[in-house]
Amino acid sequence: MKGGEIESLVLLLARLPGLGPRSARRAVLHLLKRRESLLTPLAEALARVDRTIRTCSVCGNLDTTDPCALCADPSRDHTVICVVEDVADLWALERTRAFHGVYHVLGGTLSALDGVGPDDLGIASLVERARRPGVAEVILALNATVDGQTTAHVVTDRLAATGIPVSRLAQGVPLGGELDYLDDGTLTAALKARRPW
Amino acid sequence: MKGGEIESLVLLLARLPGLGPRSARRAVLHLLKRRESLLTPLAEALARVDRTIRTCSVCGNLDTTDPCALCADPSRDHTVICVVEDVADLWALERTRAFHGVYHVLGGTLSALDGVGPDDLGIASLVERARRPGVAEVILALNATVDGQTTAHVVTDRLAATGIPVSRLAQGVPLGGELDYLDDGTLTAALKARRPW
Repeated sequence: MKGGEIESLVLLLARLPGLGPRSARRAVLHLLKRRESLLTPLAEALARVDRTIRTCSVCGNLDTTDPCALCADPSRDHTVICVVEDVADLWALERTRAFHGVYHVLGGTLSALDGVGPDDLGIASLVERARRPGVAEVILALNATVDGQTTAHVVTDRLAATGIPVSRLAQGVPLGGELDYLDDGTLTAALKARRPW
Repeated sequence: MKGGEIESLVLLLARLPGLGPRSARRAVLHLLKRRESLLTPLAEALARVDRTIRTCSVCGNLDTTDPCALCADPSRDHTVICVVEDVADLWALERTRAFHGVYHVLGGTLSALDGVGPDDLGIASLVERARRPGVAEVILALNATVDGQTTAHVVTDRLAATGIPVSRLAQGVPLGGELDYLDDGTLTAALKARRPW
């Protein structure tokens, strides 16, 4: 008899990735013990995000404005479009501060298993963007997974007609990577793509 | 530039047990992709819990009413008080449906390391409850940890003056436990507390 309110909160929290029923219960108790410092602010932050965050109609990013802050920023290089699977990948690239162009979020990868075809992703709108004058390069920053690479091939195919140069992220030994612990595929790719010292 | 709203939600979620900055970010994206089915209901459930849940002034349980549903239930056995460290332990015992008495939530354990003394826990109010006429037994359902057992000793000491019988949970081999994988302490306890077949 822990009350319907608590139980329904536990059930909702348990649906977050990384939390199960047990850790959701623990999280709810944690929240109830920290009402002013955590529970109230979290409830308000969720409501605020729900109210204000929208999907950018240009690139698919999530932001309080549409177009998003990146697409609306004149100091970014709008001639280079970096294609990512997910907003999380966009965030990861932004954290590096190494890319100054704009993005295109596909919203997933092609997946025969999950029934995701080319029309379910933002590929057509990418081709349309790439056709616009002033676009100089499309960088494919897709995951080095089977689905990611399949998607990269299809996107490259569709972009071929536009004549825009398409590049992709380099593959190789990750920073701090020990050869002994790397999978054969990565090692092979790093060997093939070796560069003069 | 993921927007202040999203970033502050990530920071708050990252403070939940079991979530770090990375999984909190993933959780926020998960929420934003499931607005109607998850984000909105979760924001509402949190606000509702924040608004309605209070601590029971009798036993320390969390519920929408004070006294809580358990303390107010005349069908429960109010002569037996089960002492637990935390509301999570109360929930665990309720899930077993094996206990029909009432509870007393201490709100933690004594801990020299964390500076938690007897006055920080609900021990005085437990003694006061135990003194009331009609109380027949106090069951200590504290964790089998050093802090839990220290607390059990102190609680037993304080209750001695009331003359109420104090019991504690049995220790032994857990259901499905394989002797080979059990720690020596558990095995020793199980051996000492052996019972006729």
